Amino acid sequence: MRDEATAFVPGHITGFFSAHPDEDPTKAGSRGAGVTLTDGVDVTVEPTANSDSTVVLDGVEIEVDPVTTVLDTLEVDARVRAESDVPIGAGFGVSGALALGTALAANHVFERTLSYNELVTIAHGAEVQAGTGLGDVVAQAHGGVPIRLEPGGPHANELDAIPARARVEYVSFGELSTADVLSGDTEALTAAGKQALSRVVGEPTLLSFMYASREFACEAGLVTDRIAETIDDVADADGQASMAMLGETVFALGTGLSDAGYDPAVCGTHPAGAMMR
Amino acid sequence: MRDEATAFVPGHITGFFSAHPDEDPTKAGSRGAGVTLTDGVDVTVEPTANSDSTVVLDGVEIEVDPVTTVLDTLEVDARVRAESDVPIGAGFGVSGALALGTALAANHVFERTLSYNELVTIAHGAEVQAGTGLGDVVAQAHGGVPIRLEPGGPHANELDAIPARARVEYVSFGELSTADVLSGDTEALTAAGKQALSRVVGEPTLLSFMYASREFACEAGLVTDRIAETIDDVADADGQASMAMLGETVFALGTGLSDAGYDPAVCGTHPAGAMMR
Repeated sequence: MRDEATAFVPGHITGFFSAHPDEDPTKAGSRGAGVTLTDGVDVTVEPTANSDSTVVLDGVEIEVDPVTTVLDTLEVDARVRAESDVPIGAGFGVSGALALGTALAANHVFERTLSYNELVTIAHGAEVQAGTGLGDVVAQAHGGVPIRLEPGGPHANELDAIPARARVEYVSFGELSTADVLSGDTEALTAAGKQALSRVVGEPTLLSFMYASREFACEAGLVTDRIAETIDDVADADGQASMAMLGETVFALGTGLSDAGYDPAVCGTHPAGAMMR
Repeated sequence: MRDEATAFVPGHITGFFSAHPDEDPTKAGSRGAGVTLTDGVDVTVEPTANSDSTVVLDGVEIEVDPVTTVLDTLEVDARVRAESDVPIGAGFGVSGALALGTALAANHVFERTLSYNELVTIAHGAEVQAGTGLGDVVAQAHGGVPIRLEPGGPHANELDAIPARARVEYVSFGELSTADVLSGDTEALTAAGKQALSRVVGEPTLLSFMYASREFACEAGLVTDRIAETIDDVADADGQASMAMLGETVFALGTGLSDAGYDPAVCGTHPAGAMMR
């Protein structure tokens, strides 16, 4: 057993999606597309002497159901410390990052000898069971600008990607509850998600991804006044912006938000999936 | 049309493999496992005014069949300039890197709007048709320490990975012809490849990968005297080394070769697959 290990998991902003429930959490998930970010979450795992596992995120002890499930599945007790570059609950996939980072780091510390796909499957299933996300974990394991063609964990899904990199800017005004949105009427959302995916599959470029995301956000009825105003400001400055699914967050490519007079966080697309530090 | 674009493709050392021919080059390929490297190949593509495509590698104009096929498939004429960190023809997947890097960079320059998987499929098929490699392209597109569970391009294959990173050292004594080995009696090689894969699937760790690779090299009868001596020297210094498939190259994890008194090139596993610069 090692002293401790740290995994880095990129943040992930979903631009559009459709939900695909299944009784088997490793088959449930979402179709859609998003950008993984060089801003992400560092997750450090160390063994505990007693049987109480704890999770501390940015210095605050919290309960994170997917992390508990991952530790239980690996049959380990651990202290999990995480530092996040991105805001919590605002559409950056922090819960997915905690689950996946815990799986990778715990596998290393406790020498569990599981494969990458097995660890991603465990984290994805834990996240789906907890209702905290549907597609973040597999996207974060892939890196780049992943397109989720078929839902589920690595053994069930099908991924492709937009072969491009970009500078990404974002501003976050607050949280939206993923659980509330997913428990509401998702019919319009699913229809909009299918249309957006079809557009991006036909033309897998960053520009087409941004168009599809913006159209999806409008048609799915999720755009708040502040979000709409910010996206319009970026468009007025000839930029491309859309809304993070699901958070009151606007992201833009290049210098879209800066050009529009905002003071955004700045990062880039992350070429690699989650990895050991 | 853009002025030019550059893609980076990690080097790839295969530790063990089994060959799987198929009439369809996007389904043909190999099973096996290897390490992708932070040492790799930068491939720059720029349009030409005339219809003569050229390939210049480290300042020398060469003919590379897979690159020609990739350019033909994308229906473009281009000047391809490549700079390689790794030796040519010594088991580092340089031809695969040239094919994949050309596909990614040409797609960007000529705005061909193909997806990542489509570009990988084109490069993989071109490499298989030319007989220069069977599994490098899909491994180089994946990054990390990929396990090739099922052969073929992205639409046919199945990949997993060893969830670890490492420092990698290597020394290269010269070339081995991939075509000669693959056109010889591959029965012993295929049997040894299956056994090695089974070991690594059962225990997907770097240590088990190195054991399996060494055993494969011996059983497949590919180890030259110089290779055997070097691997033994590393073992005597308590290190882990094996032979690159296919080249007269020894690679080691950590400081294996340095500890044994060699003056190796030093790099690391590359967490990401091939990507735009």
